[in-house]
Amino acid sequence: MNKLYVVGFGPGSREGMTIQAQTALNSADVIVGYTVYTELIKKYFLEKNIYSTAMRQERDRTEYALKQAAEGRDVCLVCSGDSQLYGMAGLALELSAAYPEVDIEIIPGVTAAFSGGAILGSPLTHDFAVISLSDLLTPIEKIYKRLECAAIGDFTVVLYNPSSKKRYDYLQRACEIMLEYKPAETICGYVKNIGREREESKITTLGELKKIDVDMFTTVFIGNSETKLINGKIVTPRGYRHE
Amino acid sequence: MNKLYVVGFGPGSREGMTIQAQTALNSADVIVGYTVYTELIKKYFLEKNIYSTAMRQERDRTEYALKQAAEGRDVCLVCSGDSQLYGMAGLALELSAAYPEVDIEIIPGVTAAFSGGAILGSPLTHDFAVISLSDLLTPIEKIYKRLECAAIGDFTVVLYNPSSKKRYDYLQRACEIMLEYKPAETICGYVKNIGREREESKITTLGELKKIDVDMFTTVFIGNSETKLINGKIVTPRGYRHE
Repeated sequence: MNKLYVVGFGPGSREGMTIQAQTALNSADVIVGYTVYTELIKKYFLEKNIYSTAMRQERDRTEYALKQAAEGRDVCLVCSGDSQLYGMAGLALELSAAYPEVDIEIIPGVTAAFSGGAILGSPLTHDFAVISLSDLLTPIEKIYKRLECAAIGDFTVVLYNPSSKKRYDYLQRACEIMLEYKPAETICGYVKNIGREREESKITTLGELKKIDVDMFTTVFIGNSETKLINGKIVTPRGYRHE
Repeated sequence: MNKLYVVGFGPGSREGMTIQAQTALNSADVIVGYTVYTELIKKYFLEKNIYSTAMRQERDRTEYALKQAAEGRDVCLVCSGDSQLYGMAGLALELSAAYPEVDIEIIPGVTAAFSGGAILGSPLTHDFAVISLSDLLTPIEKIYKRLECAAIGDFTVVLYNPSSKKRYDYLQRACEIMLEYKPAETICGYVKNIGREREESKITTLGELKKIDVDMFTTVFIGNSETKLINGKIVTPRGYRHE
């Protein structure tokens, strides 16, 4: 059966890929992905045919990958981070109905919540929620509701897509919602360009976070009520009782 | 400076490790971990000194790893999945204050939410919450509150540690809380022994899930209001609008 691998390659370095992801990419005839992502990894796969398209052309890109696989080529459709989370795995499965001869294999990867968390310390030791601030495909009221629920539930929160040119104040609004339930001293942090050139991280508080400009390559962490600083690292303890 | 690597090795297969994790483990003098986890990976690192301890001896194990590193050995403290999430990274950072000569590096890994999700399809395409049902270190009321908040926020939910001998009915109680807010037809799934011998997965509904017996090596997925079945796979769409 023809195979389409939907591969999450992690932050973008070779070291951050799983061995399974590297093996699939090494044996692919074609690598398909968003230009920014294929640019990150093409240096590791110089011999490969790479087909890349611009942002928001997810459907075209996925159709192309499915067609290539249907024609008998080994295809990897790549995503940074994990292949499910805000990635292409769901869309590939949705569109695959028209390609019954193609078997889809989802190869997971390390998403920014974990690769970024590891840079800051261990913010995600315990229960957490991931929320994207992009309202391109989700109504903004739903996003606000989730921020509120995550704050009330005292989850550690990871924000993806915290900003873009059109949404310059979304992080500020998210912080304001959180500040209705959480103290301004809550430990927060963010990491830009995780595992890439110009990686940059900062630890701050919820009160300060709302004044900070971030870009779409930034991942933001908001601690729970137990999150603390230890030697300049963010640490969420494993629970409320201590051995 | 002496190094202690806290390494998440993914589900347990060599293929599921990142290259970074494999490199750290290959160059370690000592590998330290919970017996169940070191048993999983020792076949890949036959030449290594392995120090393993039983469950709940996390503090002893971490102290041992820090001491070994302080004495100049290259040490990897290993966790299955990711090294932060319900793992040892937080504790290592907490205990490291007594070992200023040891530099701790957190190496992230693919956690069960993603390795298990990839087996079921793409349940985690969009915003999600992870909740552990273990009340060993968290008050049960807090766990219930989080389940409620995750249901109200319409997050896809991943449950870790859904059961143990003492907590045989915790998944049932979690489902009952969710059923107050979500229809019984909500798509759910679970995966046992992800990436290991006797891996087993099943797709079901929230109404059925509460009747199912699971063990502590099972990861449970509860869909959001948009989650659907496509060709026997769980797919959460990327958002509410479609291109």
